[in-house]
Amino acid sequence: MPVLQPIVNIAELLYQKGITDVVVSPGSRSAPLTLAVVRHPHLRVRVMADERSAGFVALGLAQQTRNPVAIICTSGSAVYNLSPAVAEAYFQQVPLLLLTADRPHEWLHQQDGQTIDQVNLFGNQVKRSYDLPADYTHPDARWFIERSVNEAVSLARLAPEGPVHLNVPLREPFYPTANEVFQAEPARLITTLSASPTLAPETWHALLTEWERSDRTLIAVGQLPRNSALLALLSKISDELGVPIVGEIVSNLPVNDRFITHTDTFLSGIPDEQAEALRPDLLITIGNSLLTRNLKTFFRQYPAHRHWHIQPTVDRITDAFQSLTTLIPAEPLAFLDKLFADIDYQQFLQGDDDDDSHEFLHHWQQADRKAARLVAQTLSKPNQSLTDWSAVQLVLEQIPPQSILHLANSMPVRYANLCGLSEQQAVSVSANRGVSGIDGCLSTAVGAALATDQIVTLLIGDVAFFYDRNALWSSPIPPNLRIVLLNNDGGHIFRLIDGPSRQPELETYFETPHGYTARNTAADAKIQYQIAAKAETLTSLLPDFFRPGSQAKLLEIKTDKRINQEQFLAYKSQLNNLYTSN
Amino acid sequence: MPVLQPIVNIAELLYQKGITDVVVSPGSRSAPLTLAVVRHPHLRVRVMADERSAGFVALGLAQQTRNPVAIICTSGSAVYNLSPAVAEAYFQQVPLLLLTADRPHEWLHQQDGQTIDQVNLFGNQVKRSYDLPADYTHPDARWFIERSVNEAVSLARLAPEGPVHLNVPLREPFYPTANEVFQAEPARLITTLSASPTLAPETWHALLTEWERSDRTLIAVGQLPRNSALLALLSKISDELGVPIVGEIVSNLPVNDRFITHTDTFLSGIPDEQAEALRPDLLITIGNSLLTRNLKTFFRQYPAHRHWHIQPTVDRITDAFQSLTTLIPAEPLAFLDKLFADIDYQQFLQGDDDDDSHEFLHHWQQADRKAARLVAQTLSKPNQSLTDWSAVQLVLEQIPPQSILHLANSMPVRYANLCGLSEQQAVSVSANRGVSGIDGCLSTAVGAALATDQIVTLLIGDVAFFYDRNALWSSPIPPNLRIVLLNNDGGHIFRLIDGPSRQPELETYFETPHGYTARNTAADAKIQYQIAAKAETLTSLLPDFFRPGSQAKLLEIKTDKRINQEQFLAYKSQLNNLYTSN
Repeated sequence: MPVLQPIVNIAELLYQKGITDVVVSPGSRSAPLTLAVVRHPHLRVRVMADERSAGFVALGLAQQTRNPVAIICTSGSAVYNLSPAVAEAYFQQVPLLLLTADRPHEWLHQQDGQTIDQVNLFGNQVKRSYDLPADYTHPDARWFIERSVNEAVSLARLAPEGPVHLNVPLREPFYPTANEVFQAEPARLITTLSASPTLAPETWHALLTEWERSDRTLIAVGQLPRNSALLALLSKISDELGVPIVGEIVSNLPVNDRFITHTDTFLSGIPDEQAEALRPDLLITIGNSLLTRNLKTFFRQYPAHRHWHIQPTVDRITDAFQSLTTLIPAEPLAFLDKLFADIDYQQFLQGDDDDDSHEFLHHWQQADRKAARLVAQTLSKPNQSLTDWSAVQLVLEQIPPQSILHLANSMPVRYANLCGLSEQQAVSVSANRGVSGIDGCLSTAVGAALATDQIVTLLIGDVAFFYDRNALWSSPIPPNLRIVLLNNDGGHIFRLIDGPSRQPELETYFETPHGYTARNTAADAKIQYQIAAKAETLTSLLPDFFRPGSQAKLLEIKTDKRINQEQFLAYKSQLNNLYTSN
Repeated sequence: MPVLQPIVNIAELLYQKGITDVVVSPGSRSAPLTLAVVRHPHLRVRVMADERSAGFVALGLAQQTRNPVAIICTSGSAVYNLSPAVAEAYFQQVPLLLLTADRPHEWLHQQDGQTIDQVNLFGNQVKRSYDLPADYTHPDARWFIERSVNEAVSLARLAPEGPVHLNVPLREPFYPTANEVFQAEPARLITTLSASPTLAPETWHALLTEWERSDRTLIAVGQLPRNSALLALLSKISDELGVPIVGEIVSNLPVNDRFITHTDTFLSGIPDEQAEALRPDLLITIGNSLLTRNLKTFFRQYPAHRHWHIQPTVDRITDAFQSLTTLIPAEPLAFLDKLFADIDYQQFLQGDDDDDSHEFLHHWQQADRKAARLVAQTLSKPNQSLTDWSAVQLVLEQIPPQSILHLANSMPVRYANLCGLSEQQAVSVSANRGVSGIDGCLSTAVGAALATDQIVTLLIGDVAFFYDRNALWSSPIPPNLRIVLLNNDGGHIFRLIDGPSRQPELETYFETPHGYTARNTAADAKIQYQIAAKAETLTSLLPDFFRPGSQAKLLEIKTDKRINQEQFLAYKSQLNNLYTSN
């Protein structure tokens, strides 16, 4: 048996535990792991030279498949290059399995190369960190490896999903000798069953009583993957119980007459009286973080009497609006489903059909409609140059139905949220809003495109694009990837937010203009490149751009930061009119 | 007083503590720190959008100036992007001060943006980590900030130098209000004096006795900055005491008749008998890690009877060859200076002039000369295509005297070490051999070029170059930078080392060819670009390439990985002849 057999066996164990995708960065210390997964008949292995990109590509794959993706990298600073993606995965709750090759620990601080202290390297940004043994002669060592891999994969999947770290010290030789084969042996699979959190009848009873006592109940939906069953249920709850459903593009809540999605517009500087009319008695939240600061501020300034937050695990108190009263351990869909059924049945028993005019809901819906009109007016100004925001609107109008949209930080996701997507489009939206970095948005979209045959569209600004352009470097780029690059030559968000825009250092130390276009990057990456600076050009290019083909495509949109700013300031100056002109 | 005054004061404190250079990445949370240093009249601030590059640029600056460089970044995954440079700085012992903006800790896990657990984020890869308070109303809080900054800068400078982390939680607003100015107040400076480690006379006596008893003493010099006083002393020790001085290009040891610099060549597969003739009784080591594996292996396989390692601090036992007997707390130069003076005086007292023929030294020098001839023969093969190795030799021949050379990982530093630099060239060599990553070599060279007006030449391979090309992205590129890019289209080292070259996965999973040339990258970065594929072209381009000018220059050298491999295999096949043909 080759010395490294227990390491080779990890590949089979990953497969048995349901992992199908591995992202590898080249290295010598990590070669046994690389060869093990490459030689496994059922694992799909992709290579990325830059570990930072590799981490985000894996994140993008896992974001779409909701299944842990394994990452393999060599020892030393390579491991640290994974850490931005690990932090994003942890806070976005995306399952990853990090297999980091290491030198045996006795070589730390012995002036040997590529040796850093890798044990617990990701600190509190992973769910758990395992340190495998460097010697496998004792059967207990092999048992520990098998057991740890089993546990790590299960743990990555357990709610809240997230990254798990397996540090793998390896001794030389790393390669099979002439008469060795690296072939995995049958794995010892340990199955961890899953269970749903179930509330006791008396707990339900208390919650129903609380619901009954609330005249103004509101459900706010944070970042969540698209889920049509959830959407259908929320629609019913809104229609039948008069509950406003408030959310965002990253909640995968479509723009329609029912859902409230324009809070960023109508909650900005809302007068006290109108705000009071929108304040809920009972606020119910599901999902991950909210994008819209105005919405968060509203819930903090006008706290609900009761706030329920529903999440599968309750080991941490998430009190995003500083007014949480009840943390409910439940799957949001299952919880809301039973809640609705129980209330519906109760109302039926009480002969309680539509006891009111849904006034509270209509307040919210009215505000939302007015906000939608203001956005539409802003974007329809005639003879206007193409701006980032208008471009986003045009792109969203033509995006293929049932496709996947990744929204990069920081302005594209905000513009897209101001616009929204219609229900008929049925587009699945994702974004890196775990820690909201710009560092891996392009790589994440590449990973998403690797996970599916559908068109994956990325809306991204120039700083995020060039920051992460290694995503397009070392691996074949999936042909279903569509990159829409909003190039305003710098970190435009600093010009749009209040503080930095007033500082003389704005351009040099915040925006950092670079003068780049993506033409050369696209040429190097051998992907199709087009550029648009006018709305008509953009509109005419989009149908072909979105057509499936054999090559990824990049569409660069040149805008002027000052015109973007003018449009945005004009919009902001209109916000007060939402209430005064009424 | 503005609420943020204690944070603004940090800028003045940095200046008072002798810091002159700051590297900043744009961010909003970090804006108070950025504005404070930008508005300070004496701090030089550079901006880099990609934090990974920013970290390495700071490292390159500090590598040259031997003075701590401050780095400012925003909260979230931005901080993790610094970590590859932090790890390199820690193990290379380069002083850095990391000022990472953070959200106040109470917001962790509250679904708020860009919030990760930043306390102790760099783990054991920093000398210490401070977490500053978020509220400054209590005078003790302000005292803690002042004291911590004083301590952190002193600590970064204290041997072994290294990175120190100051985590800075900040509350909004981040920008001065209309009637505030961000102007630093006089700082409270606390001076930490430095002292030299001094050995007691009886300790010296014991060491001198040990030296006296050794017939075969050898000094091996690891990675060290260029130091002409040290070189002069080592020359004297070698000449007068017959001590072989063994080192490498990263030890800044020149190739001459005296120093032993070709160990990578003549220790490769050395027969036992010849090895025994080279085995020292007493091995003395100074400096950081050795590059040459063959040299490390030799010292492990033929351990000296006694091994002294000299380093200023002795809190860790560095036992690189598993045969250390004595760890000596001393500055290498001061120690060797006194040692030589004492021995010289003792020999004078004993009338002991040149008691032997320096046979041991001549053994080493003979081997070194033969190795130098073999390298010269390898490179002088007629009608040969231009290879990476030949190109390195041609570049080193023409590199301007007294200039600075940065050698990237992994092959360029090895090729350059096989060639060496002459004493007359007086070139200062640096390399990222702390953890030997490829991730920041280009950025480090940019940082080095920012620190000086002299020509800074970088020798780099294509994977390291494209990996780190953001170094050329967001900031004016210093005109004294000269990039020599060895483009063999992939991670060529895997083809040259024994294990991966035999695997069918070599090309796809280790080399990862990409087909890129640097033409577009150079065009985007607006630096001069030339390409050479023949030795004559290269030779004719170099004089102009090295001429000072107003623009950084990139010289790309296209080589064929198979021809590189042929040359390297031919060289390796000759290695045995060093001993058999004798």
